[in-house]
Amino acid sequence: MTNNVKNISITGAAGNIAYSAVFRIASGELYGKDTKINFKLIDISDFEKKMFGVKLELLDCAFPLLNSVEVTSDLNKGFGDADCIFLFGAKPRGKGMERKDLLESNANIFSIQGKAINDNANKNVKVIVVGNPANTNALILSKNAKNINPSQITSMMRLDHDRAKALVAEKTGIECSNVKNSFVWGNHSSTQVPDITNIINAASGESIIVDSDWMVNDFIPRIQKRGAEIISYRGLSSAASAANAAISHMKDLLFGSKDILSVGQYSCDNKYDIDTDLFFSFPTNCSEGGHLINYDFEIKNDLRKFIKETERELLEERDAIKHLL
Amino acid sequence: MTNNVKNISITGAAGNIAYSAVFRIASGELYGKDTKINFKLIDISDFEKKMFGVKLELLDCAFPLLNSVEVTSDLNKGFGDADCIFLFGAKPRGKGMERKDLLESNANIFSIQGKAINDNANKNVKVIVVGNPANTNALILSKNAKNINPSQITSMMRLDHDRAKALVAEKTGIECSNVKNSFVWGNHSSTQVPDITNIINAASGESIIVDSDWMVNDFIPRIQKRGAEIISYRGLSSAASAANAAISHMKDLLFGSKDILSVGQYSCDNKYDIDTDLFFSFPTNCSEGGHLINYDFEIKNDLRKFIKETERELLEERDAIKHLL
Repeated sequence: MTNNVKNISITGAAGNIAYSAVFRIASGELYGKDTKINFKLIDISDFEKKMFGVKLELLDCAFPLLNSVEVTSDLNKGFGDADCIFLFGAKPRGKGMERKDLLESNANIFSIQGKAINDNANKNVKVIVVGNPANTNALILSKNAKNINPSQITSMMRLDHDRAKALVAEKTGIECSNVKNSFVWGNHSSTQVPDITNIINAASGESIIVDSDWMVNDFIPRIQKRGAEIISYRGLSSAASAANAAISHMKDLLFGSKDILSVGQYSCDNKYDIDTDLFFSFPTNCSEGGHLINYDFEIKNDLRKFIKETERELLEERDAIKHLL
Repeated sequence: MTNNVKNISITGAAGNIAYSAVFRIASGELYGKDTKINFKLIDISDFEKKMFGVKLELLDCAFPLLNSVEVTSDLNKGFGDADCIFLFGAKPRGKGMERKDLLESNANIFSIQGKAINDNANKNVKVIVVGNPANTNALILSKNAKNINPSQITSMMRLDHDRAKALVAEKTGIECSNVKNSFVWGNHSSTQVPDITNIINAASGESIIVDSDWMVNDFIPRIQKRGAEIISYRGLSSAASAANAAISHMKDLLFGSKDILSVGQYSCDNKYDIDTDLFFSFPTNCSEGGHLINYDFEIKNDLRKFIKETERELLEERDAIKHLL
């Protein structure tokens, strides 16, 4: 048996996305079959009992790789020595809550978490922010984790990315795994811009030209509103697909991928004419050494105004919480 | 890419166990990374919309191995050409419902499903019954699937098995994956008999003697009531751990395992002094060629009366629905 052990911290651990993620991670889907796992499950103290139930179910699986499970509402303990952090938790929008209030209360949560990660996590930690507004939460987190390189913090765009890939596969009749160079720009919100103007069929190597009308009037709005579509059928928001995306995202960041991916990341130059000091989703190459924005793509005219719109939204979000940055 | 494709049918597909299972199966956890999957998701027509939501989330994962997802409330369609069937669905106990009524209404459901499987599934199909009362449901199913060998139908004891293994590992300080020859006898109910009188530590090869008082007064009742313990913490019954157990069970039946497992199966001799014509959990060896009861174990005196008790319960259950057999 292996002596390789990783510490994985998870917030929102009593919630549905975490419930769909932890069993897959414990089975070895993230770090593979040679790495043992210590989980730290984190949520507010009201949910400690529920988290304890999740811990018991994890133990009940007799996973060979699961070394320990700790349940806590203390962030300093929860992020202690973390190698990898999934931030699923966020405050949801309550009744009568303004968008600004929502941004602000999450900004408070993520600034506290940023400090706790900074002070307690492994210095090479990788952090994925899933809780919404994910991009701006990631920005606040990063500003408060002063000793953590912003490149170690990413926000999840992978669900949008995978949704776009699956829908264009269905439309074109190409197998999902053969759709390459489909990705998503911007904010994880209804302004996001799924971009399928560069896709190729990996089986044939050929470019695929997608009907522009369909893309603008059907495809883009469908992906932008997919979350609401799921809720309309399930009566609950996406959980298992979000968990799947989070695991895929983290796995590719840790071990690399041959695909172009969509990663919400700190914007530090403006080569794609996007403002700096934002968390923005760009087409991204991932290798074990790290992830880098891929600058090979040209933004087609059709999409430029949409990309400016999602950038504007992120600038507004940043503006709303700038007193906390 | 592979041309290997398997058809997997799932009942109770709108429920929580299925929700925890299908994404893991679609990722390749059951059949591996070389086999594509066609899912048929089955539930009552009231839940078609919810199932459709699960289908959309499955598509949103862009799983390379997921070939198709069909949603249906029609059993003949749902079991069509199935290679592998997970029967998660069952009627839960309603208010004021007697145990006998519950047995009978499930017996009706499983007799219809047995006929539909008999008429539509692949002749080598493997079926796991998870919905309770799982053992007696499996018996009814088998009696109604006249062309399917009873050995192709099993009821799930794996969750109990894994719970027992994990708890004895915790008690003895042995790593979970080193606990061998722990298994469960009888019915998947509170009369089940987890048996740890034969366990060895695979790391050292040594037998482990467990304190008999602890086993009888603490360990056995704790495993028997573990389901209720989970509910008391989570506010919901075990779903992800049940799904994990179901996948592990099916995987080991398909591909074999080096461990002694607990499999609810048709009792066709009485070498362990258990009545025939029952679905009963025995210590079992699984290989790709099939599964066989392992007759090497001696039933210790302490446990004999418990095993007779769980047998008696199964005889009563059979008796209650004998007019439907």
